[in-house]
Amino acid sequence: MKKLINSIDNVLAESLEGFAAAHADIVELGPERKFVRRTSLKAGKPALISGGGSGHEPLHAGFVGFGMLDAACPGQVFTSPTPDQMLEAAEAVDTGGGVLFIVKNYEGDVMNFDMAREMASGSVATVITNDDVAVENSSYTTGRRGVAGTLVVERIAGAAAEAGADLAALKALGDTVNSATRSMGVALTSCTVPAAGKPTFAIADDEMEMGVGIHGEPGRRRVKLMSADAIADEMVAAIAGDLNGTGEALLLVNGFGGTPLMELYLMYHAAAERLKARGIRAVRSLVGNYVTSLDMAGCSLTVTMLDGKTAALWDSPVHTPTLRWGV
Amino acid sequence: MKKLINSIDNVLAESLEGFAAAHADIVELGPERKFVRRTSLKAGKPALISGGGSGHEPLHAGFVGFGMLDAACPGQVFTSPTPDQMLEAAEAVDTGGGVLFIVKNYEGDVMNFDMAREMASGSVATVITNDDVAVENSSYTTGRRGVAGTLVVERIAGAAAEAGADLAALKALGDTVNSATRSMGVALTSCTVPAAGKPTFAIADDEMEMGVGIHGEPGRRRVKLMSADAIADEMVAAIAGDLNGTGEALLLVNGFGGTPLMELYLMYHAAAERLKARGIRAVRSLVGNYVTSLDMAGCSLTVTMLDGKTAALWDSPVHTPTLRWGV
Repeated sequence: MKKLINSIDNVLAESLEGFAAAHADIVELGPERKFVRRTSLKAGKPALISGGGSGHEPLHAGFVGFGMLDAACPGQVFTSPTPDQMLEAAEAVDTGGGVLFIVKNYEGDVMNFDMAREMASGSVATVITNDDVAVENSSYTTGRRGVAGTLVVERIAGAAAEAGADLAALKALGDTVNSATRSMGVALTSCTVPAAGKPTFAIADDEMEMGVGIHGEPGRRRVKLMSADAIADEMVAAIAGDLNGTGEALLLVNGFGGTPLMELYLMYHAAAERLKARGIRAVRSLVGNYVTSLDMAGCSLTVTMLDGKTAALWDSPVHTPTLRWGV
Repeated sequence: MKKLINSIDNVLAESLEGFAAAHADIVELGPERKFVRRTSLKAGKPALISGGGSGHEPLHAGFVGFGMLDAACPGQVFTSPTPDQMLEAAEAVDTGGGVLFIVKNYEGDVMNFDMAREMASGSVATVITNDDVAVENSSYTTGRRGVAGTLVVERIAGAAAEAGADLAALKALGDTVNSATRSMGVALTSCTVPAAGKPTFAIADDEMEMGVGIHGEPGRRRVKLMSADAIADEMVAAIAGDLNGTGEALLLVNGFGGTPLMELYLMYHAAAERLKARGIRAVRSLVGNYVTSLDMAGCSLTVTMLDGKTAALWDSPVHTPTLRWGV
């Protein structure tokens, strides 16, 4: 295992310390690094909180800031945060408007966020994201997995919260955006979890995992390496077929951590053309490493159908360590 | 070789098409994809143009836009663009204020930009970046290599150009920022150039290349894997020792393409602490994949000493595909 680390036990703590120091104008760490929170809160605004296992950086901490999340709870690598992390985060950033939990659909995350919701003193609503069309059930999931589309939910709900939406409206909007979002991924290599010290799965030099999950869990099937166009054919067919609509959309080409930007833009080219042929026009774009699987090579495509309202919310000012515009 | 591509011959063209489509609000491609240019130009403003071999994305095309570059010329992977690319870019974006070439110090790039300068009809000045302290001469260089610090020169000079600086002032400012900037890198793995189909260099599972160049060219020495702290010790000592100053600085922790953000933030933590102990305080930060070497694992540290003027220019509005704030 080749990683820029000191000791396996300290990877998360040292990384969070670096993150907080690099972005001290926006975020700060909670006690015992249980959560990352915005330094300044807006009284009465519903607080948006997400979280999940680490190893997907910049998700979620990179999306804490104006126009997106109020706090993020980082678990150990690929491990759900504990209920007390969400509970302490909620108590720290709830300024009277209640709390919206945005939770990727994995059994551990859903259970722990649910326990925190039951223990919280204020109002809590939950949006569960399940944008991955690759498989219906998976290693850690009943139902579809929540993957890169989660950041789109965080952004659009976060924008609405800044604009004055109340908790019920945010819950409804988050569910609507999730329903308008589909994703699918492909892996060329495995990731390596620091504590494991070896690749999560074995894969031959001429193989790839179609429909892979963001923890390296199995997708639809193991196949021989395909061209970018053939990969885009299958992924766009799965996404657009499931969306079953036409119109304007956001297209996110998300790198899993080990794939160069040059290839991600090439995939964008292939995907945007195929979506257009199906009547889906990419009018907003995001290309880069946003929801990763440590050092895994590969990418996912995410499509969110937009209307005038959600497009305007996407475009409104945001100021986080990762996404920033208009500020 | 595992890459998301269709054919080796089309990697660059398809990637550029995807890039231009994803960022059509900011950039467009020149004829025959010889350059990437801003869609809207400011009459009379000196035009900033950079370029170099591809494979370092987002450098340079990702930095075309308001407050940074007016055009970027992409060569084939790790190969200098040709003089006619820079010449055509210059003719396309020079609106009467002349052209500033920002060139990383590699023999091919310097020679080709120099030929373009001689052929250009308008005024042209050149800033050559050479921020890499690792080695004094290298495979493709006489003198120090230009690496990730180049983006800092592009940003600060680009900001000054928007604020009204003339060509002579931009040339002087670019040289000043380059003189205040030092970088050094380390590689854990090799990159793989698509046309070569195999890793550029062999490296054992327990080795790393200290001082590596951004094309995978040799650094100071091949060493056994070290801890993040020990790596930061050596890199910060080399950078700070060569800067020989104290005060406020920008700290850029740059991933080479295959290293997760979690590790880059961990390196930020190690580097910022060590700089502070030497009297250099990181008051501006950038952490991510900005000047890459395809899929190479590893990172570089860049430190630019700031004063009130350069810090304000860094902070001023910028709107490019990669860096954006205040707009």
